[in-house]
Amino acid sequence: MPYSRPPQGLYAPIEYVLGLGGKRIRPVLMLQAYNLYREDVKAILPQAVGLETYHNHTLLHDDLMDNADMRRGNPTVHVKWDANTAILSGDAMLVLAYRLMNTSLHCPAVMEEFVETTMQICEGQQWDMEFETRDDVTVEEYIEMIRLKTSVLLAAALKIGAMLAGAPTSDVDKLYRIGTCMGLAFQLQDDFLDVYGDVNVFGKNIGGDILCNKKTYMLIQAQKKASPEQRGELTRWMGRDDYEPAEKIEAFTRIYDVLHVGKDCQTLIDSYYAEGLSLLSGLSVPADRLATLRQYVCSWIKRDN
Amino acid sequence: MPYSRPPQGLYAPIEYVLGLGGKRIRPVLMLQAYNLYREDVKAILPQAVGLETYHNHTLLHDDLMDNADMRRGNPTVHVKWDANTAILSGDAMLVLAYRLMNTSLHCPAVMEEFVETTMQICEGQQWDMEFETRDDVTVEEYIEMIRLKTSVLLAAALKIGAMLAGAPTSDVDKLYRIGTCMGLAFQLQDDFLDVYGDVNVFGKNIGGDILCNKKTYMLIQAQKKASPEQRGELTRWMGRDDYEPAEKIEAFTRIYDVLHVGKDCQTLIDSYYAEGLSLLSGLSVPADRLATLRQYVCSWIKRDN
Repeated sequence: MPYSRPPQGLYAPIEYVLGLGGKRIRPVLMLQAYNLYREDVKAILPQAVGLETYHNHTLLHDDLMDNADMRRGNPTVHVKWDANTAILSGDAMLVLAYRLMNTSLHCPAVMEEFVETTMQICEGQQWDMEFETRDDVTVEEYIEMIRLKTSVLLAAALKIGAMLAGAPTSDVDKLYRIGTCMGLAFQLQDDFLDVYGDVNVFGKNIGGDILCNKKTYMLIQAQKKASPEQRGELTRWMGRDDYEPAEKIEAFTRIYDVLHVGKDCQTLIDSYYAEGLSLLSGLSVPADRLATLRQYVCSWIKRDN
Repeated sequence: MPYSRPPQGLYAPIEYVLGLGGKRIRPVLMLQAYNLYREDVKAILPQAVGLETYHNHTLLHDDLMDNADMRRGNPTVHVKWDANTAILSGDAMLVLAYRLMNTSLHCPAVMEEFVETTMQICEGQQWDMEFETRDDVTVEEYIEMIRLKTSVLLAAALKIGAMLAGAPTSDVDKLYRIGTCMGLAFQLQDDFLDVYGDVNVFGKNIGGDILCNKKTYMLIQAQKKASPEQRGELTRWMGRDDYEPAEKIEAFTRIYDVLHVGKDCQTLIDSYYAEGLSLLSGLSVPADRLATLRQYVCSWIKRDN
């Protein structure tokens, strides 16, 4: 591996982060898209690893910026080492991602796609940070933020996989849109499950977003539909520092229930989900070849965890 | 420019940093190397700007890691904005650099060269950080560190310029080595001038490296040649927190004088300088075409400021 060379002080944190696991959704999507058209999936392993390396670069720097102590049940790099190590190793992971993406690559269009994607993800992260201090974020702005921060990388995974396989342009574009829809559905599902998920199946604690006043679809939609009284109650809770977590979560959930915010969220999820699946069926690929990819996206979209 | 699009919170710090000026040595070297073989230098402006953008990305993140408040007489990004802005805008500059390098590029070898270079610069920065807490750094290790941290980017500037111009491989390799030699000579010159420079011509204050115990060539070479007594005196000074800056600088300088460390440094500078110039004359280019580049490297190597 490129990070087996010295200095270990630079590469050890990278191996640590990449060793923490995760669902590896992005490389899997890329390989599956490629596999719709070609058998020799091993040919694009460097690009698949590059995508996962890039994704972990964003997690490493996001955790540093969010001051998050844990990631996948282990201490984050700036905790296990220090902030400077997190900055420099994170930079090195970004460089590694481009190197892997460029490996035995004779298709500048793929590099262009990857570069534009990584730029958009920086922009999504910036919007996300700016939204924290704004109280007038619209649903449209929120959807655009999660599209940039989360969806474009899933979309690029499918698109680049197809590009590398030499798929027809119409398929390449469809796959990009499929990734976008699935990414949006996935993130909205995450927002929904923070309120209505089952703690035993859902990885995180329920109500985490509510407690830190995170402007998810649920909260933005609630504020939009709320009566002056309800809006006032939400605002008061968000202003308080001293409260019983359970009480705040209960109060928010009650308002969400009354306003049917959960239903709105599910409707939106289903519409993205449906668009993605219908686009999937529209690919110029024999139905039986589509089975694996369809099954895969269903498995992590319709997850109730 | 790619960074004229929203969010301004991401791009404003980038425009700020790139607007602070600087000698623009790297893009100039790239354009001059290209111009040895071709006239249409405008064709590689994106790559030249990409190189400068990359260089400023390293300055931005290095200043954050070093906790430096000022850069080119202006507050650094983490001071003017905050640390998170410095991290994310710095990441975005790295992405922008790759995008610019990839612009209308049909030569994956150039991207490969750039990616390998940026990887080595991360490694150089890591060595530099590790050397701070080591007291057994050898001259050879130091030279390798400054080669990675400083020289490879100058070398890549010349090499990529020549590659883009379709120069013969032997010239491309010579230009890389020329950049390496000039980079090493330049950094060693910097170490020398910190001790023996004229404060009025040398940008920084004299003795800055001495006061922060920076392991430059001067100190490493002095420790190597020092008698037990002299080594003891250096060590004592480095351990003290309470001292008259002028006294410490004077004490170090006295030891450097006695050990002729300045002379050793100049000898080394001259050897790299001579190697670079003789390689320059060996290029398969008419002598008159070489004049500009020769003049340029001389101007900033033999600078006595």
